[in-house]
Amino acid sequence: MPEIRYNPITSDWVIIATERAKRPHEFIQTDREKLIVPAYRPDCPFCFGNEDHTPDEIYRLCNDQGWRVRIVSNKYPALSSEGERQWIRRGFFRTVTGVGHHDVVIEHPDHNAAIAGMNAEDVLNILRVYRTRYQELRQDPRVKAIVIFKNHGMEAGTSLEHPHSQIAATPIVPTQFRDRLDMATRFFDTGGECLFCRVLEEELATGERIVAQNADFVAFIPYAALSPFHLWIFPRRHISSFDSTADSELASFASILREVTAKIYYGLGDPAYNFTIRSSPTDEHQTDYFHWYLAIVPRVSRAAGFEMGSGMYINTSLPEASAEFLRSVIVPS
Amino acid sequence: MPEIRYNPITSDWVIIATERAKRPHEFIQTDREKLIVPAYRPDCPFCFGNEDHTPDEIYRLCNDQGWRVRIVSNKYPALSSEGERQWIRRGFFRTVTGVGHHDVVIEHPDHNAAIAGMNAEDVLNILRVYRTRYQELRQDPRVKAIVIFKNHGMEAGTSLEHPHSQIAATPIVPTQFRDRLDMATRFFDTGGECLFCRVLEEELATGERIVAQNADFVAFIPYAALSPFHLWIFPRRHISSFDSTADSELASFASILREVTAKIYYGLGDPAYNFTIRSSPTDEHQTDYFHWYLAIVPRVSRAAGFEMGSGMYINTSLPEASAEFLRSVIVPS
Repeated sequence: MPEIRYNPITSDWVIIATERAKRPHEFIQTDREKLIVPAYRPDCPFCFGNEDHTPDEIYRLCNDQGWRVRIVSNKYPALSSEGERQWIRRGFFRTVTGVGHHDVVIEHPDHNAAIAGMNAEDVLNILRVYRTRYQELRQDPRVKAIVIFKNHGMEAGTSLEHPHSQIAATPIVPTQFRDRLDMATRFFDTGGECLFCRVLEEELATGERIVAQNADFVAFIPYAALSPFHLWIFPRRHISSFDSTADSELASFASILREVTAKIYYGLGDPAYNFTIRSSPTDEHQTDYFHWYLAIVPRVSRAAGFEMGSGMYINTSLPEASAEFLRSVIVPS
Repeated sequence: MPEIRYNPITSDWVIIATERAKRPHEFIQTDREKLIVPAYRPDCPFCFGNEDHTPDEIYRLCNDQGWRVRIVSNKYPALSSEGERQWIRRGFFRTVTGVGHHDVVIEHPDHNAAIAGMNAEDVLNILRVYRTRYQELRQDPRVKAIVIFKNHGMEAGTSLEHPHSQIAATPIVPTQFRDRLDMATRFFDTGGECLFCRVLEEELATGERIVAQNADFVAFIPYAALSPFHLWIFPRRHISSFDSTADSELASFASILREVTAKIYYGLGDPAYNFTIRSSPTDEHQTDYFHWYLAIVPRVSRAAGFEMGSGMYINTSLPEASAEFLRSVIVPS
């Protein structure tokens, strides 16, 4: 019989469709066209040497080889960095001015780099840039929430091949953030513990959904994973906002992020994926109730009418089997 | 400047990305391969004459030509119609047994039929079958919510070409249903009116997002549409559950559903789409707080990391321009 699992952090209900469950290797992307991607493309605005083809540069991190990571303005920003945060009433309906920030992070000078194959220092540099920019954006009084995210591959919604991610800073607290913070707050109020710390404790206790771990971080498939190989990386220490992560922790995070993306790359044949880093809203920067984490979703399945009409999900894989599969993937060093 | 619109019914925040906004005709699916689809395929289990290739038949609606609409069991059901509804604790985590129903509605005997091109009676027959089955499923004490949905086209998540839709009956109230019902209940509690009726009144008053209307139904693009041409069809009368729709209203619904799908078909070049019919949870069958409606989402854009990480959406079209475009599409009679 199928089972319907509940995720206590997100309130998501997920049907684990055992009747139609696939084995992990059935999700390997065998039909993905493998192209030889060059390290440099003259027409790519993000490539080393083409810096004058990008919009305004916001930040760059350099070493003696030159820049390693850059932040530039999004050419088509969803949010404008100019203007005031204002509510506008239109009869019964409401609008907030679309102020905030929408940055592009160019992750590497090389066109063909990928987090899964970068050296540890290169991955750490990306995370350092995320943290620096997060700290800066948080000072903008118009900013109420900051989302760091990456779209890798066409099916994950990107048209640009050069490795990049994005940072969006919104002038409102998204409803989903507020709902989850409320849930976690009530959990703390009634039990005196962080909901996220508790879930991590439970995951470590059973161990069956753990994919990787190190001194500071744990990567696991959630009990009620929304889709095959949907994976979370939690810091072990209670940290509510990404930018409060310490230097030594950031290095551990770089290491586990590289390991997990490499397991996905080699184990599943480089599927498209999205990842996102969730932190507490900026006005609740230090809180007992929220715990930042990274979520990564390989695009190996598709949500359709059922998901749209119910907000529930159907997952055609067993989280425990997915975790076991990824655990066993050997990553070339 | 972009604007961020709030949907009072769903609590969704949507960035209307004016800086990157496309004009309606830019969403026309010009690259969709147009194949001549035959009226009958010997290998299609849903085609007239191949009835013995489907799993158990649950229901059929006939006229003097034979069956017009059939309901059959899903070959790979996400929910099992056998078994008890039970909560299972696994340490901190919880699961509900996956009992309920997961039916397939074969909408027409012909392989190449489409709601956009059917005659009024054929569309009405589909809706009659939905209603009959809804009334039946609601009697099952294990069923707490019923979702009717359709996936049309590969990008909308279907692999079967023969026109069909699905009915899922779940043993729990999905969190999204509960959250929205709560919101609407509080709105009623403080204002004494149905939130949905109020939104409909506002939409009719401005008129700028209305796409079609008749005696009993109104089709409009919501103020904070999640994506280009995301469209809602509301009954004018306050009806909380789809199966309480009267005969005359059902005929009006068939007419507007055919009109809207035809506008999408002819106006946008037959894009893939999902539609879903939302009703109140079965335990709140007759309520002042909920109002059933149909939502249809043409798959002309893709949600990515930002949507995943925030629960917000970016819509690269103006709802008012999308509505004007669809209003002006002439449907061959």
